[in-house]
Amino acid sequence: MPAAAKRRRVGVAVVGLGGAVATTAAAGVEILRRGTNRMDGLPLAGVSVPGLCAYEDLVFGGWDLNGQSLAEAAAEHRVLNDNQLDETAPALAAIRPWPAVASSAFCRRIEGANAREAKGHRAAIDAIIDDLMRFKAANDVDDVVMINLASTERTPADSPALRTPEAFARAVAENDLSIGPAMLYAAAAIEAGVAYGNFTPSVAADAPALAEMARQRGVPVAGKDGKTGQTLMKTVLAPALRARSLHVDGWFSTNILGNRDGQALEDPDSLKSKLGTKGSVLDSILGYRVEDHIVDIRYYRPRGDDKEAWDNIDVSGFLGHRMQIKVNFLCKDSILAAPLALEIARVLDLAKQRGEGGPQEQLSLFFKAPMTANGRAPEHAFHTQERMLQDWLGVPAPAAAAE
Amino acid sequence: MPAAAKRRRVGVAVVGLGGAVATTAAAGVEILRRGTNRMDGLPLAGVSVPGLCAYEDLVFGGWDLNGQSLAEAAAEHRVLNDNQLDETAPALAAIRPWPAVASSAFCRRIEGANAREAKGHRAAIDAIIDDLMRFKAANDVDDVVMINLASTERTPADSPALRTPEAFARAVAENDLSIGPAMLYAAAAIEAGVAYGNFTPSVAADAPALAEMARQRGVPVAGKDGKTGQTLMKTVLAPALRARSLHVDGWFSTNILGNRDGQALEDPDSLKSKLGTKGSVLDSILGYRVEDHIVDIRYYRPRGDDKEAWDNIDVSGFLGHRMQIKVNFLCKDSILAAPLALEIARVLDLAKQRGEGGPQEQLSLFFKAPMTANGRAPEHAFHTQERMLQDWLGVPAPAAAAE
Amino acid sequence: MPAAAKRRRVGVAVVGLGGAVATTAAAGVEILRRGTNRMDGLPLAGVSVPGLCAYEDLVFGGWDLNGQSLAEAAAEHRVLNDNQLDETAPALAAIRPWPAVASSAFCRRIEGANAREAKGHRAAIDAIIDDLMRFKAANDVDDVVMINLASTERTPADSPALRTPEAFARAVAENDLSIGPAMLYAAAAIEAGVAYGNFTPSVAADAPALAEMARQRGVPVAGKDGKTGQTLMKTVLAPALRARSLHVDGWFSTNILGNRDGQALEDPDSLKSKLGTKGSVLDSILGYRVEDHIVDIRYYRPRGDDKEAWDNIDVSGFLGHRMQIKVNFLCKDSILAAPLALEIARVLDLAKQRGEGGPQEQLSLFFKAPMTANGRAPEHAFHTQERMLQDWLGVPAPAAAAE
Amino acid sequence: MPAAAKRRRVGVAVVGLGGAVATTAAAGVEILRRGTNRMDGLPLAGVSVPGLCAYEDLVFGGWDLNGQSLAEAAAEHRVLNDNQLDETAPALAAIRPWPAVASSAFCRRIEGANAREAKGHRAAIDAIIDDLMRFKAANDVDDVVMINLASTERTPADSPALRTPEAFARAVAENDLSIGPAMLYAAAAIEAGVAYGNFTPSVAADAPALAEMARQRGVPVAGKDGKTGQTLMKTVLAPALRARSLHVDGWFSTNILGNRDGQALEDPDSLKSKLGTKGSVLDSILGYRVEDHIVDIRYYRPRGDDKEAWDNIDVSGFLGHRMQIKVNFLCKDSILAAPLALEIARVLDLAKQRGEGGPQEQLSLFFKAPMTANGRAPEHAFHTQERMLQDWLGVPAPAAAAE
Ligand SMILES: NC(=O)c1ccc[n+]([C@@H]2O[C@H](COP(=O)([O-])OP(=O)(O)OC[C@H]3O[C@@H](n4cnc5c(N)ncnc54)[C@H](O)[C@@H]3O)[C@@H](O)[C@H]2O)c1
Ligand SMILES: NC(=O)c1ccc[n+]([C@@H]2O[C@H](COP(=O)([O-])OP(=O)(O)OC[C@H]3O[C@@H](n4cnc5c(N)ncnc54)[C@H](O)[C@@H]3O)[C@@H](O)[C@H]2O)c1
Ligand SMILES: NC(=O)c1ccc[n+]([C@@H]2O[C@H](COP(=O)([O-])OP(=O)(O)OC[C@H]3O[C@@H](n4cnc5c(N)ncnc54)[C@H](O)[C@@H]3O)[C@@H](O)[C@H]2O)c1
Ligand SMILES: NC(=O)c1ccc[n+]([C@@H]2O[C@H](COP(=O)([O-])OP(=O)(O)OC[C@H]3O[C@@H](n4cnc5c(N)ncnc54)[C@H](O)[C@@H]3O)[C@@H](O)[C@H]2O)c1
Ligand code: NA
Ligand code: NA
Repeated sequence: MPAAAKRRRVGVAVVGLGGAVATTAAAGVEILRRGTNRMDGLPLAGVSVPGLCAYEDLVFGGWDLNGQSLAEAAAEHRVLNDNQLDETAPALAAIRPWPAVASSAFCRRIEGANAREAKGHRAAIDAIIDDLMRFKAANDVDDVVMINLASTERTPADSPALRTPEAFARAVAENDLSIGPAMLYAAAAIEAGVAYGNFTPSVAADAPALAEMARQRGVPVAGKDGKTGQTLMKTVLAPALRARSLHVDGWFSTNILGNRDGQALEDPDSLKSKLGTKGSVLDSILGYRVEDHIVDIRYYRPRGDDKEAWDNIDVSGFLGHRMQIKVNFLCKDSILAAPLALEIARVLDLAKQRGEGGPQEQLSLFFKAPMTANGRAPEHAFHTQERMLQDWLGVPAPAAAAE
Repeated sequence: MPAAAKRRRVGVAVVGLGGAVATTAAAGVEILRRGTNRMDGLPLAGVSVPGLCAYEDLVFGGWDLNGQSLAEAAAEHRVLNDNQLDETAPALAAIRPWPAVASSAFCRRIEGANAREAKGHRAAIDAIIDDLMRFKAANDVDDVVMINLASTERTPADSPALRTPEAFARAVAENDLSIGPAMLYAAAAIEAGVAYGNFTPSVAADAPALAEMARQRGVPVAGKDGKTGQTLMKTVLAPALRARSLHVDGWFSTNILGNRDGQALEDPDSLKSKLGTKGSVLDSILGYRVEDHIVDIRYYRPRGDDKEAWDNIDVSGFLGHRMQIKVNFLCKDSILAAPLALEIARVLDLAKQRGEGGPQEQLSLFFKAPMTANGRAPEHAFHTQERMLQDWLGVPAPAAAAE
Repeated sequence: MPAAAKRRRVGVAVVGLGGAVATTAAAGVEILRRGTNRMDGLPLAGVSVPGLCAYEDLVFGGWDLNGQSLAEAAAEHRVLNDNQLDETAPALAAIRPWPAVASSAFCRRIEGANAREAKGHRAAIDAIIDDLMRFKAANDVDDVVMINLASTERTPADSPALRTPEAFARAVAENDLSIGPAMLYAAAAIEAGVAYGNFTPSVAADAPALAEMARQRGVPVAGKDGKTGQTLMKTVLAPALRARSLHVDGWFSTNILGNRDGQALEDPDSLKSKLGTKGSVLDSILGYRVEDHIVDIRYYRPRGDDKEAWDNIDVSGFLGHRMQIKVNFLCKDSILAAPLALEIARVLDLAKQRGEGGPQEQLSLFFKAPMTANGRAPEHAFHTQERMLQDWLGVPAPAAAAE
Repeated sequence: MPAAAKRRRVGVAVVGLGGAVATTAAAGVEILRRGTNRMDGLPLAGVSVPGLCAYEDLVFGGWDLNGQSLAEAAAEHRVLNDNQLDETAPALAAIRPWPAVASSAFCRRIEGANAREAKGHRAAIDAIIDDLMRFKAANDVDDVVMINLASTERTPADSPALRTPEAFARAVAENDLSIGPAMLYAAAAIEAGVAYGNFTPSVAADAPALAEMARQRGVPVAGKDGKTGQTLMKTVLAPALRARSLHVDGWFSTNILGNRDGQALEDPDSLKSKLGTKGSVLDSILGYRVEDHIVDIRYYRPRGDDKEAWDNIDVSGFLGHRMQIKVNFLCKDSILAAPLALEIARVLDLAKQRGEGGPQEQLSLFFKAPMTANGRAPEHAFHTQERMLQDWLGVPAPAAAAE
């Protein structure tokens, strides 16, 4: 890089800034800034494309119902080890979330005092836009992207209010109850021309009204629900089973996790949102319906952020003979998620520079339920998604290969 | 298909015709011929390309040290269920292996009376060519392909005899001990212009001398070592780990199996051949060396042909945090292998019709150690291999999708 | 045994005679009768105690909602292999269940035409007693025991009717809705002086009213819920963890099964009965409450009667360091259960000969929720239960050792 | 405890004091001394028997080939967490191992400079006795016990020298090569009247000559090979399988571990010693020979001290139907071992106070290959072993229950 070139700085405005994924992402950028040479977990670490903001040049701000500083929040989540907490404490202590827009009707198990007095939907959207403008100005960044890393909300009732930009505008004016906080944040981003990525299973920019608005205004949006553990495995294994014509008779998936996200999923309504994004992946890849596809998620405290997933796959092979594949993934939820959130932010910022608006399909490989343009069905096969992003970036081969 | 078109018939001359994989393949074709509608396990069942011989039009013959009929052999292997054995018994009883070319120096644990009196390498090659000619004539087939499904041989000592066609010819004349049975069969195929596929880990057409001979004479060859279970999983998972920049710190693989192939692998020399083809896959896909990559294979009788594999993968993710993935594959060895042997035969036959000679890289996805042309490094990533075959076949999408 | 001694013959009157466990038990006895020498799975096969009826001398009869013959029923359950079905078909075809006493209020997912016209509780009890008398007379047996192998019923609402024999008698007269079919069968057995064993989680002889009645009348009763798979493992492992002072931080158990019992457990009320008997085992053995003890059961058709259980145990050891134990049990539900049902019948018959009435604690090792006398807490540790039975039988060492 | 009673203090002289198990034990006692209230992992924490020395009153000394202080050694083993290392560093820094008696012929992969100049076997034994006397005097302890926690030695060739005390004495005088270091340490302990426990698989006090010497001199000895992980599980599960008459058709066990002990086991001769003690357990418990019993141990660095074991058990149940049980134990090797070493030391000290000499069978539950008196076969079933210790201690129920 020519020494003279000014480096691009990008502000990342996070919904749920005090959460496990968000604090891990912010702490990780701080550790990268301080000069580690290990880039594990960052899928695009090896990619060098003009305009792609460096990790160290991402600046964090955002909203959370919990008003504690990111240093305090990170210490509570127990994702980072003691050295990492110590090293990042000074920088994270300086970041404190802005008051949040929330609704207990949309996410029951999460509470927090750091909420904005809500005077209706319009006022909420405007306040979010204000926050975005202030954030941008205060940090001297080239641009801002918004990433939703908040607790999972329940799926809203199907409502005409969510179908067209016009209906949505009316519903905002009327404080329609089918509009939840995630949608208000997304609407604010789109109105403000701020690229928006949704790492949660909550309905937001994927509501048809908002997707259309993003398209009309040329704002890049992407989502939803980060693909980190079990669903990642599913979208890696299922294409291979299909390629070998091994028929999937059943697929049983169960998960235990003990972090705050797991606690939020104890609310059956939030769980439903999560199961929704996990469900259709398999049938779409295989080309037929797997009736015995079961997904369980259980809150189990001994594990904290160390999620564990079991998959059992029953397949039929040649001449109808039956076989089983079992996968046991002992993962770290936020460790897998945080770097993906960083990549989504960087690619969305690049998309905006390239003048691309509406759903960004090239980001499909980071999501369980990828948003698509023009009513296309989403692509779920992992390696095909990988190629989509490589093609869009204009890089020849898997980035991580450059080790 | 226009009713008038004469259907292509192809003879499959199998080395190791009485083995578990071979008898399963032959029985499977018989069951397909009798009209089942389940095509599970056959990767190219949905592919329709001119010249590709139908499964039902494959005709089986071949050599085995064991002279019993295929019906008797299949009953001993206990791969098929009782109904399937009954249904195929009449057809399989009519097939009896030809006397084999063998060498106890190359494969210790396997014995059998059905061996040809060996009067030196040249005589052996000529006898095999004779067998091929007689087989072709007797069955009124359009062409013949040879598939090696015999017991794993030990790796030959590195010898100049295997480096060039000329050296090989001299070594044949001198009955050089570095030439084993698998190479004699392969040499016979190539001399006879018969396409050759090697499903075993034994050195055969991949000896540089024979690969060059195949190129010079325009005979398609492919190999080696069918990719059915654990290595298949490895080449499916490793590309995804790389795409997510999850660093592989170690990969421990162990297997138990109780069939005759497992027994043959109790000979440490044969085991070495097998571990050889399993070893390099990982480093090649990941782009770095995994020092703690361990592969164990153990003969364990309670399982018979039901092989079981465990994989434990240790990975490092974002900020150096460690995670584990465990895969437990309860597979049926020959059930996975037999359909691949059928596809290899069909594609080799098509390659010969298309006039392509030498190593057939488009068959990489069926092999643990794919042969390549022009000294290229083999492609191991499963989905890339899949695309290579699709491109060569000229089909747009994964064949099996058409369910 | 002196040749002259007349062998004891015992009738086993089974509630749910057409079920998977019952048909496997009946078929098994037929196979033993025909002279197999494999006694696998029969815990007391090596025990020789005067009065203990031989397996071959058990005679089967009983009730089922489904009126088909045991041969037809066994063929549907797909527990036995084809040879075993063939071998037992003639004998099983001759046994056809008697009309059942049932209530859709107590077990929703199970239907069947072979139901007795119910004219109130009293009439039902009398009819069951009649059946027992007729069964005994028709088969020239020395005595009869009743074993409940019917579908799991929902747990009845707590009701004063179930507390004392007197209240129960009044409730029978008034056709009180808190009395379900399992209790009617148990009451009939006790009234008729027929020993009663409950292999299901349904409330029956364990209702205080009936346990007291059994005590008063000197009828041996035992239950409940056969301990076959996951709970067996729990009661084997937990005592060892306690002996090593490994603290159980959490225990996650999940199950998939695809048989009719699994289907019945899709009814949340029946599931609750099952989870009830599975729940307290752990705390009782360990001596402290494991708050993160989770048990899931899921109906998953690909497996049929092949149940699969996963357990994950999180333990803390020396200096607070954490470890994990994972157990994966690929079992056959009815294959494990049927021999236990046989042993329960044989031991109950022996208890009656010995003049013992009321709950038979020596049978604890066969049950998830053992009934106890005198308000004692049940013993759950497997090896202690084993010793209890050995002591009662008067045998020195584990019976099965005599191999 | 009456305030006036002087507390018993016991010196623990450890062979291999700088090893992972030894440093964990020493650090653990220091942490207990500083007042933790968590007694996890200590099987006898709840037992209160007169004469049983408190954990805090154990004093550590011993030999190691590696001369670094225990603080340095503990830091290298990475068994304890950072807090625990910090907390114990001052105390452990003050302990430095005495020069060791060693032989590269008996343990190839382990090196170290801290070796005593060996002038023959007799001189070595005398030097060890000197060390013991000095240790006792310097620390004002009531008595001393010796525990062998050194690297696994190879199994010595069968030799008459090891059969009787007299032959052994002659062999010592003649510096016979069949006598290895572990035997010299054990001989020194017995000569010095110091109770001796062998936590390693090396041959030591179990050589008939030394066992007899211990009996004659009334010195308590116990061993060998601590039962911590996979073998523990085996001796817990196998008795239950026998109690249920589930026939074990095969048992496949494999282990990965990356600590120094794992490295030592890369030497095939040391591995043989280990496999020896692991092998016979199963047949002894089941009462028949399991031919397909396989045990693998593999050095795999990513895990360090976090050993992982897989067990696959194939069983046949009722009517010959086959089932599988799989156990995956993610354990911490030294965390499991260290508290057992402490208990062995405490019980040996108590045995000496009670005047019991020779093999101490009541310690069987801590060993893979328990030493027995009078040529009895060892008891392997875990729960029977537990009762043996309880009976000997005179406590009614499992100690750990008192939570
Ligand atoms: N592997 C993963 O971790 C993963 C994968 C896919 C999706 N996700 C999703 O990412 C999201 C974050 O996960 P997490 O583990 O960090 O959860 P978390 O519970 O630790 O953090 C969520 C944060 O959002 C805050 N919050 C809730 N409602 C809010 C609102 N209306 N406005 C502002 N802040 C609000 C909460 O106070 C909390 O601090 C979840 O929706 C989760 O489902 C995570
Ligand atoms: N999943 C799989 O089953 C799989 C996967 C990859 C590779 N393979 C390889 O395929 C081969 C066949 O496997 P299998 O399970 O059928 O083994 P098998 O032992 O059942 O059959 C091998 C047959 O080859 C015969 N044979 C041995 N030497 C011969 C010779 N010189 N000439 C002719 N016949 C000879 C033997 O008599 C035997 O009948 C093995 O090399 C195996 O390693 C199998
Ligand atoms: N390992 C095991 O299989 C196992 C272990 C513990 C407990 N159990 C219990 O054993 C019972 C039997 O299990 P299964 O697998 O044989 O179930 P199943 O569903 O195959 O059989 C139950 C039978 O009971 C009949 N039935 C239902 N209600 C009845 C009534 N009121 N009167 C007479 N018959 C009636 C049904 O028609 C059916 O034939 C279940 O309650 C199950 O929970 C089984
Ligand atoms: N779970 C367990 O950790 C476990 C279980 C059963 C048995 N064991 C046995 O316990 C022993 C110790 O295990 P570890 O993990 O602590 O091993 P380690 O390798 O960490 O420690 C062994 C120590 O012994 C020292 N040593 C070697 N030869 C010696 C000699 N002749 N004299 C004095 N010191 C000597 C070495 O220098 C080393 O410091 C091994 O034999 C192991 O097989 C351990
Ligand atoms: Na998370
Ligand atoms: Na059942």
